[in-house]
Amino acid sequence: MRTEESVTNTISFLLSKLGQLANARFADRLAQLGIRPRHCAVLELLTGPPKAQLELATTIGVTPSVVVDMLDELEQIDAIRRVRDRADRRRQLIELTPAGHQLRRRALALARETDDSLLDGLDTAQAAALRTGLQRMADSTIRK
Amino acid sequence: MRTEESVTNTISFLLSKLGQLANARFADRLAQLGIRPRHCAVLELLTGPPKAQLELATTIGVTPSVVVDMLDELEQIDAIRRVRDRADRRRQLIELTPAGHQLRRRALALARETDDSLLDGLDTAQAAALRTGLQRMADSTIRK
Repeated sequence: MRTEESVTNTISFLLSKLGQLANARFADRLAQLGIRPRHCAVLELLTGPPKAQLELATTIGVTPSVVVDMLDELEQIDAIRRVRDRADRRRQLIELTPAGHQLRRRALALARETDDSLLDGLDTAQAAALRTGLQRMADSTIRK
Repeated sequence: MRTEESVTNTISFLLSKLGQLANARFADRLAQLGIRPRHCAVLELLTGPPKAQLELATTIGVTPSVVVDMLDELEQIDAIRRVRDRADRRRQLIELTPAGHQLRRRALALARETDDSLLDGLDTAQAAALRTGLQRMADSTIRK
């Protein structure tokens, strides 16, 4: 039987199962920082210059109300602050606080720990090929 | 900046996002068959000889009550039937019906379609390396 002759060996099924596992393991680690995996995309986007809520929502691909919830949660732990746009005082922008920058670095360290735990059965070349494949797939689907 | 210097580029984060996408795309396709992705693991396990509910639950890694729910759903669409174990008449076993075997083949075809849609941005060697990496990861985590 060829390996792909079983639904459970298709890339779709494996991705789904391993995605659930990766998310659960990462979420377990992130709990100590008081955030969930979905907050990480916001933290990443805010490492650069301040951004408007709508820009964050559009880039992440969620509704503005979801971003507002996430920003409220990040504001409660002093990771972000809402500031006035200097070019247009009516406009509100979001920026990371110093604590937010530190939170992002700690989240990245925990994501790498999670990666290491998942990659335990792969050698270096296999891990690199897997990373490349996943990034290409993300570029041609999620990020396109 | 190295690619792994962003949480959103870690294998954990990519797996989580692409897993959600793969599951959603596969579920969309499977809807026409009246089943969800989780039913596929049951269908796969039942391609061989009849099995007990507890054996199915243990192999898939879910509680017996979850397996009972899935079997009830599969029974409603005539994909499985409950039969008496010939070696031990008190024991009930589960087997695929001819319609169940056909359902499994159709689900596999839809999983392959989903794979093709996800692999659009990868060449043949990259797709093969990705498959190998995912299978190894599954073997060392989920299936161990």
